[in-house]
Amino acid sequence: MSKYVFYAPNPTNNGFLSEEESFHACRVLRMRNGDTIRLLDGKGGHFEALVDVIDSKKTSYSNLTLLEKQEKPAYQIHLFVAPTKQMERMEWMVEKCCEFGIHQIGFFISKNSERKELKGARLEKIAIAALKQSKNLFLPQIRAIESLKSVIEAAKKETRTQSFFAHISNPPVNTLHKQIKLNHSYNVFIGPEGDFTPEETQLFLQADFVPFSLGKAILRTETACIATTHAIHLLHEI
Amino acid sequence: MSKYVFYAPNPTNNGFLSEEESFHACRVLRMRNGDTIRLLDGKGGHFEALVDVIDSKKTSYSNLTLLEKQEKPAYQIHLFVAPTKQMERMEWMVEKCCEFGIHQIGFFISKNSERKELKGARLEKIAIAALKQSKNLFLPQIRAIESLKSVIEAAKKETRTQSFFAHISNPPVNTLHKQIKLNHSYNVFIGPEGDFTPEETQLFLQADFVPFSLGKAILRTETACIATTHAIHLLHEI
Repeated sequence: MSKYVFYAPNPTNNGFLSEEESFHACRVLRMRNGDTIRLLDGKGGHFEALVDVIDSKKTSYSNLTLLEKQEKPAYQIHLFVAPTKQMERMEWMVEKCCEFGIHQIGFFISKNSERKELKGARLEKIAIAALKQSKNLFLPQIRAIESLKSVIEAAKKETRTQSFFAHISNPPVNTLHKQIKLNHSYNVFIGPEGDFTPEETQLFLQADFVPFSLGKAILRTETACIATTHAIHLLHEI
Repeated sequence: MSKYVFYAPNPTNNGFLSEEESFHACRVLRMRNGDTIRLLDGKGGHFEALVDVIDSKKTSYSNLTLLEKQEKPAYQIHLFVAPTKQMERMEWMVEKCCEFGIHQIGFFISKNSERKELKGARLEKIAIAALKQSKNLFLPQIRAIESLKSVIEAAKKETRTQSFFAHISNPPVNTLHKQIKLNHSYNVFIGPEGDFTPEETQLFLQADFVPFSLGKAILRTETACIATTHAIHLLHEI
């Protein structure tokens, strides 16, 4: 099986790699006409193909063969986070959550978050790189930043979904594993370093979202994202 | 309770902050004589004290009062890892493992690891920062890099300890949660990006270390460290 893996969202029998992937194949990997490559469509498909004409802008391939087609998993994780001041922390979070497997990553504006805007393009690149490296077959959707109200409204409409928000209180609320219903989909909301405001907490409670504790240690925002994503996978395995 | 937390490994009733912590208190936080501070000794102790004389090199404090003394946890995690080429990845790993709580982080030389040396001082600083931020009370020991053989030899001698190594194989070996005995101590060995060599795997097997799988996704070295540390804590909670 070829070790050269590319992302191709809609591969066809005679297709082209994107400009970015073409550059990588041609200039970085120095591939040649006739080489075998693998393609991931980010929707569960894993293919093999042959390079027809290597080109730094538009590499063509043919002989597309399906190697594996994964069905959508029985549960999906939709993570929503108040972005951290340091963008680097969000980049690491996206990489790690994609390695574990995640289906959607969204961002919302929170009063205590110092970042009110965010560029998705770089995060998408990181997600694609993690997809290729981790051998996961589903690329998460990276959503643009929105107001907390609108994200909650959208999340409320989903069926067979549990919606959680990380909540620090004294005494602490229950942890995730005590409240999760397996094989549902999950919306998980993680607040900023300064936590949600009482008004934001009220928005969640009014929408019947379930507060959960991340345990005794105080985790950074990006660590809370990684821990929750990992915990949901682990709880489905044991 | 004061929000100003400092690391003081051996606090006394009339003590001094280290040069680094003194600088932070004086120049960054601009604290004043008479302010209340909290001290963590990294060995389970959490104290309160009063600043006597603020000084950018040698801040003195007095009136040391114990706020909390945590006993050593029923289980300890000793993580050993083949360092990644990018030092930044090890720095993130140390930060995240310290947030979850970890008791020792060691490094070993592995054939497929591109990094054969490593400076511990910066990692210790990161561990101290994570200790202060996470409210964990135990500072992990950051060990110097050693040969794999000598780390295995030392690990073998410990009692009431399970020793694991991450192992990729087809078919996969069992995951950690199927093999862990709760409330032991754990040595966990994580290999380099190119995995352990067959010879290195033999060293583990000869020493009766237990191979474990991290699941279907291929995790980066630092992600495997974070996932295993988090998993051990979660398995003790549920």
